Amino acid sequence: MPASKGREPGEASAGGAAAGRTRDQVVIGVDVGGTNIRAARVGSDGRVFQRFESPSPARDQEMMVDALVAVVAEAVAAGGGRGEVRAVGLGAAGYVLHETGVVMEAPNIAWRDVPLRSVVSERAGLAVFLDNDANAAAAGEHLFGVARGVDDFVYLTLGTGIGGGIFIDGKVYRGRRGTAAELGHVTVDPTGPVCGCGRRGCLEALASGTALEREAERLVALDPGSVLHGMSGGDSPGLEGEAVARAAEEGDRAALAAFEYVSLWLGIGIVNFIHVFDPELVVLGGGMARSGHLLLDSVRRSVAEHGIGSLVRDARIELSCLGGDAGVVGAAAMAWEGIG
Amino acid sequence: MPASKGREPGEASAGGAAAGRTRDQVVIGVDVGGTNIRAARVGSDGRVFQRFESPSPARDQEMMVDALVAVVAEAVAAGGGRGEVRAVGLGAAGYVLHETGVVMEAPNIAWRDVPLRSVVSERAGLAVFLDNDANAAAAGEHLFGVARGVDDFVYLTLGTGIGGGIFIDGKVYRGRRGTAAELGHVTVDPTGPVCGCGRRGCLEALASGTALEREAERLVALDPGSVLHGMSGGDSPGLEGEAVARAAEEGDRAALAAFEYVSLWLGIGIVNFIHVFDPELVVLGGGMARSGHLLLDSVRRSVAEHGIGSLVRDARIELSCLGGDAGVVGAAAMAWEGIG
Repeated sequence: MPASKGREPGEASAGGAAAGRTRDQVVIGVDVGGTNIRAARVGSDGRVFQRFESPSPARDQEMMVDALVAVVAEAVAAGGGRGEVRAVGLGAAGYVLHETGVVMEAPNIAWRDVPLRSVVSERAGLAVFLDNDANAAAAGEHLFGVARGVDDFVYLTLGTGIGGGIFIDGKVYRGRRGTAAELGHVTVDPTGPVCGCGRRGCLEALASGTALEREAERLVALDPGSVLHGMSGGDSPGLEGEAVARAAEEGDRAALAAFEYVSLWLGIGIVNFIHVFDPELVVLGGGMARSGHLLLDSVRRSVAEHGIGSLVRDARIELSCLGGDAGVVGAAAMAWEGIG
Repeated sequence: MPASKGREPGEASAGGAAAGRTRDQVVIGVDVGGTNIRAARVGSDGRVFQRFESPSPARDQEMMVDALVAVVAEAVAAGGGRGEVRAVGLGAAGYVLHETGVVMEAPNIAWRDVPLRSVVSERAGLAVFLDNDANAAAAGEHLFGVARGVDDFVYLTLGTGIGGGIFIDGKVYRGRRGTAAELGHVTVDPTGPVCGCGRRGCLEALASGTALEREAERLVALDPGSVLHGMSGGDSPGLEGEAVARAAEEGDRAALAAFEYVSLWLGIGIVNFIHVFDPELVVLGGGMARSGHLLLDSVRRSVAEHGIGSLVRDARIELSCLGGDAGVVGAAAMAWEGIG
């Protein structure tokens, strides 16, 4: 934190004196998703200096690696006089074997047993730290976000899917191989809707942004007078989560009901995690968390209703404050922690 | 292990020479349940030298503590020339705050914030180690049972209820206060049967011995030709889990169906724990685990069917081999580990 305190991002390139060198050091944080590859130059205080983005050629393993390496190279080169790049942090969607740096498989990317850490490290000529994207985001919350100073917490990223990260004793908990914390694929209703993973009733199938949109579409059909109905054009061409959030803010009944549905299931999932982990804090991140208190209040209510009182009442539930940068900042946090 | 190797229990009292002193050291392991208090003198290799038992006056807090202290005193006194008692391990049903040694509450015992560790320690004049009974049983598996040499595993005790223990890096994971691993109270079907905790569709409500008996009774009513129907007298006076297991062994359809039901839900619960923890091993203990491969085979099938293939296929699922002594041996394991 103190290194860059009080300096504006624009100033980072102004110094250039040897004495200022350590202040200008950055890592490249990369959020490797099935739709986009996002990167950023991030300071040791979590400050984002510059952002980079490329679409993901997710269907082709080679092209995907090439695109990733190209974004990293662009982010490294962009520095110029802006200081030294210390390392690269990669937060990748999918099952990551942490010790070997291999992406075993990813739901939306054509990756099978890709030794991503060594490939990117060789081609970029930098130390690379690789983890699952949700673990990385959790690391970001721990170093720079709402979980600063909290060593035992559960992190959920609520977007198209649901990812999870678990911190125990101040460290990411990865399990035997690195694939622990698949919190979106905990079954909470075995006869429920089909999940992206092909199974039924995963938390992700009931409480993700996708579930919110599905519920809103179902409910709007029952309520032609709703604001949402107007937004959707009336013939349900697919509602965006943000539109549902806006409509809910305006008091739209269908949108509010969709939020209640998702919050109810999210509460049940969080209760399970509290009963299992007895954490100090549960952090909600990802796109859906940006709907703020609309989500948070009803999730807290659901947890209080569904949990065993003496177990859940002291566990805090908070929203991430890292916003849209959570992915790149999380990947950067991993890199900063990795280089010590 | 090596200390008492090759010696029969009866021989333990025979020596008496100073040189034999360390070989004869024991701890008192106590399993404090809502029905019975069971204790044993247990050697450092997990061998049970002598057992003690008393009914639990569970409805009265004072009487319950008195009964526990009396059993401990009896077990200590019984030693005579049999060697020195090093410590006492207590595995107690209920929510145990590990750091302070307090039982916050217990489902079947009238305990509210009882400082059990200090009370027993003072009255018995011995070091006391206290934990939740399932955590203690997991410690027993780790030191003396099927989880020897395995540092990351999930333990489930399947009896009237379902208790859980989690080992991470060779140590019991207790969470912030000590109430983690309430694995029986993870919700897997929010509209399912009511659990002892008052909530619906907990794993315990679907996959415990109680659930097995309930299912068997329901199914036997539909199948008057079944062996079980004969056993139950035909007018469902309540079937015992062991009778259901025997009938299933004999190929009784209703009993087999009840086992399939319980195994299916147990498999779903275990899948959740594997997705969350990525453990090396899942151990099934408690009374139901004694039905052996009848349970194990169908649980393994359910896990393979319900899990994400790449996540569950390498996780072993095994039965405890500690039998009816698992509770006292687990409590003793805690004590042996506690005194180092």
